[in-house]
Amino acid sequence: MAIWLMLVLMLSSSFHPKSFSTHAINTKKTKPIGFPFSFIQPEQAQASLDAKAVVRLYKEKFYTQTLDHFNFNLNSYQIFQQRYLINDTFWGGPKGNFPIFVYTGNEGGIEWFAQNTGFMFEIAPVFKAMLVFIEHRFYGKSMPFGGSQSTAYSNSTTLGYLSSTQALADYATLILDLKKNLTAEKCPVVVFGGSYGGMLAAWFRLKYPHVAIGALSSSAPILNFDNITSPYSFNDVITKDFRSESENCYQVIKRSWQEIEETAAKPEGLEILRKSFKICKNYITANSLEGWLSTAYTYTAMTDYPTSSNFLNPMPAYPVKQMCKAIDDAKTGINTFEKLYRAASVYYNYTGQAQCFDLNDNSDQLGVDGWSWQACTEMSLLTGGSSKDSIFSAYNYTYNDRLKYCKYYFNIVPRPSWIPTEFGAHNIYRVLKRFGSNIIFFNGLRDPWSPGGVLKNISKSIVAIVAKEGAHHVDLRFSTSEDPKWLRDVRQKEVQIISKWLTQYHNDLINYPSS
Amino acid sequence: MAIWLMLVLMLSSSFHPKSFSTHAINTKKTKPIGFPFSFIQPEQAQASLDAKAVVRLYKEKFYTQTLDHFNFNLNSYQIFQQRYLINDTFWGGPKGNFPIFVYTGNEGGIEWFAQNTGFMFEIAPVFKAMLVFIEHRFYGKSMPFGGSQSTAYSNSTTLGYLSSTQALADYATLILDLKKNLTAEKCPVVVFGGSYGGMLAAWFRLKYPHVAIGALSSSAPILNFDNITSPYSFNDVITKDFRSESENCYQVIKRSWQEIEETAAKPEGLEILRKSFKICKNYITANSLEGWLSTAYTYTAMTDYPTSSNFLNPMPAYPVKQMCKAIDDAKTGINTFEKLYRAASVYYNYTGQAQCFDLNDNSDQLGVDGWSWQACTEMSLLTGGSSKDSIFSAYNYTYNDRLKYCKYYFNIVPRPSWIPTEFGAHNIYRVLKRFGSNIIFFNGLRDPWSPGGVLKNISKSIVAIVAKEGAHHVDLRFSTSEDPKWLRDVRQKEVQIISKWLTQYHNDLINYPSS
Repeated sequence: MAIWLMLVLMLSSSFHPKSFSTHAINTKKTKPIGFPFSFIQPEQAQASLDAKAVVRLYKEKFYTQTLDHFNFNLNSYQIFQQRYLINDTFWGGPKGNFPIFVYTGNEGGIEWFAQNTGFMFEIAPVFKAMLVFIEHRFYGKSMPFGGSQSTAYSNSTTLGYLSSTQALADYATLILDLKKNLTAEKCPVVVFGGSYGGMLAAWFRLKYPHVAIGALSSSAPILNFDNITSPYSFNDVITKDFRSESENCYQVIKRSWQEIEETAAKPEGLEILRKSFKICKNYITANSLEGWLSTAYTYTAMTDYPTSSNFLNPMPAYPVKQMCKAIDDAKTGINTFEKLYRAASVYYNYTGQAQCFDLNDNSDQLGVDGWSWQACTEMSLLTGGSSKDSIFSAYNYTYNDRLKYCKYYFNIVPRPSWIPTEFGAHNIYRVLKRFGSNIIFFNGLRDPWSPGGVLKNISKSIVAIVAKEGAHHVDLRFSTSEDPKWLRDVRQKEVQIISKWLTQYHNDLINYPSS
Repeated sequence: MAIWLMLVLMLSSSFHPKSFSTHAINTKKTKPIGFPFSFIQPEQAQASLDAKAVVRLYKEKFYTQTLDHFNFNLNSYQIFQQRYLINDTFWGGPKGNFPIFVYTGNEGGIEWFAQNTGFMFEIAPVFKAMLVFIEHRFYGKSMPFGGSQSTAYSNSTTLGYLSSTQALADYATLILDLKKNLTAEKCPVVVFGGSYGGMLAAWFRLKYPHVAIGALSSSAPILNFDNITSPYSFNDVITKDFRSESENCYQVIKRSWQEIEETAAKPEGLEILRKSFKICKNYITANSLEGWLSTAYTYTAMTDYPTSSNFLNPMPAYPVKQMCKAIDDAKTGINTFEKLYRAASVYYNYTGQAQCFDLNDNSDQLGVDGWSWQACTEMSLLTGGSSKDSIFSAYNYTYNDRLKYCKYYFNIVPRPSWIPTEFGAHNIYRVLKRFGSNIIFFNGLRDPWSPGGVLKNISKSIVAIVAKEGAHHVDLRFSTSEDPKWLRDVRQKEVQIISKWLTQYHNDLINYPSS
């Protein structure tokens, strides 16, 4: 699912909501890293999988949700319609207390997450589990303030209700109500999530142990706050991914940024770049081209899956290797830009159908995106730094960059200490060694987000599964016949652990029936 | 500390805030049970203990607190000054990672709780602990919206920020900041609280395990929600307390309600009652007299301490026994009213100085009290039912009574499921057997709130200490030379358990230094 987009390296500002700010800012480096789901176009989502087949997998429902769980002014009694998807095909029903597997939705339309969490569909029959995918407020069709995104996103008064704590309370409320309506109060709930959804799943187990008996938290950088994780680690992993394939590949990319900028500065330089990279005629700048390339490398590192995939774009198996192959295999006489173009094509044009590539960032029309708001309020994951060995240009990213960006767009000051205050992050191994249970933290070390994840076992039942070869929540994807052994092992281990939680729960039901 | 006042049995409406409602309602039975702290007068508080001596025990400080932790609209960036009291006389300091004991304040001025939690002062030297007592928002001097209670309490827009979840987030934020300022990040925090403060202490450990390593939660009815605990249990315990002293005492009180009403209905009947009970001239009704008597029985049952005390009023040791003695020892020819008057005097006039008693409920002038707001939003502890064997008149108290009251006063509908959703309550033994650690739940079974408490051990480190002879958070009071063995044992056990938590924490610091 969630591949987190390196927007920091993308084009300049993607929106200018009039209600927030008017003065200029260079956002090339300062925009928070975002998730792709808020700006994926519907046709893009549908192109990436056989939508028809997947649509049959669930029913769409709506729940009347409380707008503000934590305040009791009259405003907070407002409600909105929260979407969830449900599949009870495999469910054993309430009589045998069969489980309910819930996906704690992240920053986008929930069908996207349902369609990209094949793991849940595949294990449902084994456990006779019901599947529920709950959409995160302010995304997809779950818009407060009447259902229109433009209204919900229009200013900080409405956007104020977009927060992780509200989302978690939504999930608790919806799950308990759903269970009650199904007379399934005793059916155990296990929560699943990847990326931000994985953070939510882990936090949900920690904050609502009375609602979920366990959590599979995949590729969740819950330690990427308050400088616990270095802001350089994200780009360091991308660097390592490429360098592990070939030193030459890394060097070519690393040296290219200066060459691009020097070329762009020459007369007719932009035209040279346009032709080299087959950029369409409407728009080009050095910055936007660099953003386009960086996005390709970043995405590819995140989704460096061992099988071909079709997530945002069709991609071959081991796409980083393929990119480096394109660079390394280039014959003598082929210049840097041509090499880079071939590499970028692995990401942008694997099918070979694109005639030219559009750099024009027209996301102005989309208005504010939800993740930027979350990043400017509580989600201070700082990941924009590039060390001197980075595959990208060196950059000393600091909290101040975030601050400037947020002041500019929302006239708001982030609260970078809030998430560690609310959910904990410092000394997590020591804290959770004596508290809590039943969480699996999966991380793949090819994933740039992995340094912010939990990479060591914390206790007997709060465990880390680390796959050296793995990328961003690869475990949650549909299985394929080409899956390598390590990936099959990861999933098997997850199934075994979840199975143990359920067994223990059922034993507890028998041993402590009335408590 | 918190003796919860049986306001449900008191006079009619105590406030009529114009902004909330205008039509009439009989609140005799419907007003939520409240805490006394919101309407104790300062002189009352001072009279009950040697204020001067206690004032020296701490310094008063203020912390700049966030108004809304869970929302990020511009309004939520408002701040207020939160008061806390601090005593570092005994603290061993940050170098040896000596502990910080924090009282999670409840519904009243924090000095009241500090002054009535002698246990913390007495154990501080043993542990070389710092003491911090944090005031709950919207009480005492911790008033948002400029510091004036009348502004903060003026309508639901301002009162909306008065909630338990906001209060817990206040405590987390303040504690972490305080530790940072003292370079005491590694000093372990243990939280303490009684009554509603005990609920907050337990919930704080469950929600913020990264801030507090353990909690002593005294007389905290966290299971008094959603009909997990019977709404009759509160009055049933009062009944049992009196009946355990003497069957005659119970019968005299039980039969008295009808006699009072019959007398009041007669010509000159109210004058007879006024004279019998030495009620001052300004105000009397049957209802208000019944409320006055019920309050005496209820308070006395809650504070049925084994030593003389001076909490709201000076009281002898074992005051329920003394009340029943007053009734039982009355010679032949002394009528019911005279018996009741003598019993009530144990509570209202133990020193014998009062000339007459004032029934006139002039709390209108005090405006809305905070606990009524909390009870009308999230704190749906329903305790007003009286069974047919009750010492009070039988009454079938339901959620509807609460609803009517809250609609009338605040034009607001309670969310009775919210607390169990947010904090858990159903199946708590099963849930916490597999989750969490380091909580002591103390309950005294003479305390009407005890049926809503945790009365059985949940796990090795989430334990219940139950004192058959104990009343409302008696463990937290200053010790006296007359304390019975069971009470000394309770406190010793608590010290031992807290000591174990701290030892384990310090071992963990050594064994897992960098995690």
